[in-house]
Amino acid sequence: MTTAPAYLDRSRDAITPALRAVVDRLDRKTRHQAAYHFGWVTASGVPASADAGKAVRPALALLSAEAVGAAPEIALPGAIAVELVHNFSLVHDDLMDGDEERRHRHTVWKLWGASSAILTGDAMLALAQEVLLESGLPTAAPAALLLAQTTRHLIRGQVEDVSFEQRSHVAIEECIDMAAGKTGALLSASAAIGAVLAGAPKATVDALALYGEQVGLAFQLTDDVLGIWGDPAVTGKSAHSDLRARKKSLPVSYALNQGDTLSVELAAWLSAPGEPSEGELQRVVGLLSAVGSREWALAEAARRMALAEDALRGVELNADARGELLALGRFVVDREV
Amino acid sequence: MTTAPAYLDRSRDAITPALRAVVDRLDRKTRHQAAYHFGWVTASGVPASADAGKAVRPALALLSAEAVGAAPEIALPGAIAVELVHNFSLVHDDLMDGDEERRHRHTVWKLWGASSAILTGDAMLALAQEVLLESGLPTAAPAALLLAQTTRHLIRGQVEDVSFEQRSHVAIEECIDMAAGKTGALLSASAAIGAVLAGAPKATVDALALYGEQVGLAFQLTDDVLGIWGDPAVTGKSAHSDLRARKKSLPVSYALNQGDTLSVELAAWLSAPGEPSEGELQRVVGLLSAVGSREWALAEAARRMALAEDALRGVELNADARGELLALGRFVVDREV
Repeated sequence: MTTAPAYLDRSRDAITPALRAVVDRLDRKTRHQAAYHFGWVTASGVPASADAGKAVRPALALLSAEAVGAAPEIALPGAIAVELVHNFSLVHDDLMDGDEERRHRHTVWKLWGASSAILTGDAMLALAQEVLLESGLPTAAPAALLLAQTTRHLIRGQVEDVSFEQRSHVAIEECIDMAAGKTGALLSASAAIGAVLAGAPKATVDALALYGEQVGLAFQLTDDVLGIWGDPAVTGKSAHSDLRARKKSLPVSYALNQGDTLSVELAAWLSAPGEPSEGELQRVVGLLSAVGSREWALAEAARRMALAEDALRGVELNADARGELLALGRFVVDREV
Repeated sequence: MTTAPAYLDRSRDAITPALRAVVDRLDRKTRHQAAYHFGWVTASGVPASADAGKAVRPALALLSAEAVGAAPEIALPGAIAVELVHNFSLVHDDLMDGDEERRHRHTVWKLWGASSAILTGDAMLALAQEVLLESGLPTAAPAALLLAQTTRHLIRGQVEDVSFEQRSHVAIEECIDMAAGKTGALLSASAAIGAVLAGAPKATVDALALYGEQVGLAFQLTDDVLGIWGDPAVTGKSAHSDLRARKKSLPVSYALNQGDTLSVELAAWLSAPGEPSEGELQRVVGLLSAVGSREWALAEAARRMALAEDALRGVELNADARGELLALGRFVVDREV
């Protein structure tokens, strides 16, 4: 069995030539901006190999074909498509969130403006469908349908995320639903699309989809814990990054819903204006810790991971690929929390 | 034979219930914004029946199935899909162009902000693929592939349109290519998608696609003439609207490429800053008329219409539907110029 990081490297290498070939179809300007976003060129067009992320979604797509006994190659169009949909959402979200940097490089909108970011994201979404449907596989249509439905859920998650910023209260269920859309939906589709392309039975596809969704939620819970309690030296983000943005992340929504005086204090702080001071941040971290938010989020992440692993044990899968899927899920979720 | 306006009304009535049903799948917020954009509700959510455009694209889609001897119903998912892609592009373009009104109502971004317009457009694009692929037709995959490729061309057209604003010179071929992407591509796909869904032979599909593309170019040429010389009482736009925005429309690019002193004068005026005075606008209209831009654009539109009509005569089609297609094309292009 390959280790998860080695599998991620191998699957990124497997998809990159074909991904670059489809991006090359775009008009000169959009092609350059997409290639920059993927880390293949600098802003001025010089070849580069910048960090383009772990490419977890294509790896899941390839493994999901192997898990149902097919060659990973059959999932290649699916792997490229999920990576394109993921990056469509990143390019648009960076613009909506006003994020000026991603992986220590300027974002597309920051370099080329809002119109360019909108059009480059749109083009990636269209290309995702194109690459799947032109594969000529008889299973391309159900795979493309899964991807279109997934995109709708992804958008719902982002709509909710944006709307939470304007609200003083968010129920835990709403926050979970938002994460299921924003993070769970595409990881779910990634873990299922290879099996769909390989023509696997519905029960197997559903189990793989459930695996991806629950890994996605476990990942989000862990990521939210790191956004509050994470060590900047390990996470690479600034300390308390999510708190600094007064974000209603999962641990925060847990605390908001405890119905005690600390919840009221937290709600008031979240809707206060301006950049919070270091002292304030320390106080809110203490408040969240006192309410048990960190323990709740970590326990909930562990529960989701167990559900994910149960899903894979409930159906017949290639043993090696199942092992790789389990290892990949744990690698994505288990970080230094 | 039905008249073109009656056929447009009938086809809008045919698609609206199914279009509303797919829009209803969106999250509450996006659903409301999409329903507003389509004219079904007011900004505050009260049912309405505002002008939602002529819905030419769905009419072409339904006719293209009839033209190859199929029932129009088979093209219904295609008709809804092209209308969704068209409106995706309108919602995003209004934001990029900063247009505050469309058909005398505020645009989505103007009412709800940039993020809402981005997400509502994204959702429409995803829904277009979803409605096609869930039809279960064996021809859904090639139809969805056509739509994805068309979306890429549509985006290329918009990228070029945006980039022309920053350039002092644009070749006629570039300007035609932009219009072929921005206007021709989706009209071409609309005129072909019904035939694709009906499983028509490639030569027939290609002829219908060529018809739609050339009608699209003829429409754009006529529309550009109206944007410069049109009577505001007839067009419903302000006088010289395109000139006021110093737009490099087709008649302007023709004049720019005449290589005489008037071209140089025009190029200088196009890159000048600020709101042009009425006197200036009159002078530039005179300059364009002197160079023969109006005659060129109208002759070019007529040439494109002849090419379009030739394309339909070159293949075997249902005679009634061919007549309706020809009438619809002429109705779209022939306005008071």
